[in-house]
Amino acid sequence: MIRVAILGFGNIGRAAEEAIIAAPDMELAGIYHHYDSLEDMQADVALVCTPTREVEVFAKRLIEKGICTIDSFDIHTQIYPLRQTLMPLNRANKSVSIISAGWDPGSDSVVRALLLAMAPKGITYTNFGPGRSMGHTVAAKAIDGVKDALSMTIPLGTGVHRRMVYVELEEGVNAKDVEQRLLKDEYFAHDETHMIVVDSVDALNNVAHGVNLVRDGVSGDTHNQRFAFNMTINNPALAGQVMVSCARAAFRLQREERYGAYTMIEIPPIYLLPGDEETNIRSLV
Amino acid sequence: MIRVAILGFGNIGRAAEEAIIAAPDMELAGIYHHYDSLEDMQADVALVCTPTREVEVFAKRLIEKGICTIDSFDIHTQIYPLRQTLMPLNRANKSVSIISAGWDPGSDSVVRALLLAMAPKGITYTNFGPGRSMGHTVAAKAIDGVKDALSMTIPLGTGVHRRMVYVELEEGVNAKDVEQRLLKDEYFAHDETHMIVVDSVDALNNVAHGVNLVRDGVSGDTHNQRFAFNMTINNPALAGQVMVSCARAAFRLQREERYGAYTMIEIPPIYLLPGDEETNIRSLV
Repeated sequence: MIRVAILGFGNIGRAAEEAIIAAPDMELAGIYHHYDSLEDMQADVALVCTPTREVEVFAKRLIEKGICTIDSFDIHTQIYPLRQTLMPLNRANKSVSIISAGWDPGSDSVVRALLLAMAPKGITYTNFGPGRSMGHTVAAKAIDGVKDALSMTIPLGTGVHRRMVYVELEEGVNAKDVEQRLLKDEYFAHDETHMIVVDSVDALNNVAHGVNLVRDGVSGDTHNQRFAFNMTINNPALAGQVMVSCARAAFRLQREERYGAYTMIEIPPIYLLPGDEETNIRSLV
Repeated sequence: MIRVAILGFGNIGRAAEEAIIAAPDMELAGIYHHYDSLEDMQADVALVCTPTREVEVFAKRLIEKGICTIDSFDIHTQIYPLRQTLMPLNRANKSVSIISAGWDPGSDSVVRALLLAMAPKGITYTNFGPGRSMGHTVAAKAIDGVKDALSMTIPLGTGVHRRMVYVELEEGVNAKDVEQRLLKDEYFAHDETHMIVVDSVDALNNVAHGVNLVRDGVSGDTHNQRFAFNMTINNPALAGQVMVSCARAAFRLQREERYGAYTMIEIPPIYLLPGDEETNIRSLV
């Protein structure tokens, strides 16, 4: 049995707990909160379910204990730097980290890599939503003057999105000032963003989400190859499940002494699955 | 540059040639026909584009020369046995084979594995077509009394298919006898199959195909997670392209001394792609 601990117990941490309990080859090795000491953690793999900006500091502490880590770090421009930062630590401590292991970045990244291999020339568009973005919601909540927030992602086609940000304000703050801070935040600066002040964010809350990932491309010299990957999902449930499946892959890579930090496109898909190799190959290939 | 040879020059072999020419990191190391001697082949990787039932014998000869092999072997029940047969030969000759590297089995297998990791409980249906099945067409052509054939796959939903087999008969043969032989063939025995005698198979020929791969499942304890992978494609162009992308992966695995026989679900998707690791991770993850 793979001993899997959870660090951070928000939406994703709770979903991850359910996925660990449902996994035939895992046991829950404890649930830790941000302020807990990690000194006594006894686990093969820890799921770092903290806000994205806290991932690096917690991952480093866990790797130094020889524990494998899984996160769903989701600031796209910072993924490669995070991998390079963790890599030498993983190697020094005989640990494996799988980073950005959610659904985007994560399983969508695997689909994008596969489609590029299938049709090397062409354009891929990833259209998100409509749905609640967890990363953007956390970022909006962190804006000075915001009491509670919900950021909805609205697909406008060809990878262009609108952000609808519903906020409850702290008493006495100026909505225009909050809006200016929001629009300057790295999470919102590049998209059409609307801030809407509401009385209750809780009344709007729904963790449904979706993706329509499209590629039209060229295989060899043949044009008009068309692909689409669609899903409608409970967002934290899928993110938590993907992290748990990646915990299995990290454990296996560690046993194979392939220490290091990986993104999901760097690991064999079969490593994500329980069960023996022969059964999986016979039923899936 | 990776030197890639082609063995067998039918629909897939021709498409593979185009994909090799379009690849920035490959050069064509010759085109061989079934009856050619392979003694003088100078290649890093050979694409075995023969009919499925000839794959094993040719792959063995190439592996013994230390050449990596790629095939799109498509008899689902025989894939795992083929892997086990080639594995020790690959290891003894420091070679890598990637087997069943087309789109199904192949890239669809990767999607099925990924969806299983994302929603471990549930049902996956792979619906093919409408389109021309290359494997079934080759099998129909091999039936005694058949001069030419075209097997169309018609999706009936929930993974159930009809086979519409259009045949030109040899002179003087009895259509009923041919039909009986066809319906008993392993390729057709498990599906609703109709044989239709036509004057010209060539007049019907169209290599368009498609897939609608659907999974409704459960992530952790959360139901109603819904996924679909759709494509409409030129069939041999995609199969040839996938084989060429797998040639790149085989070459890399060989350099890493990870000798053996693999299916596509066992290889990291990034290995399928040209270009450096950092660029691919930054653009895809």
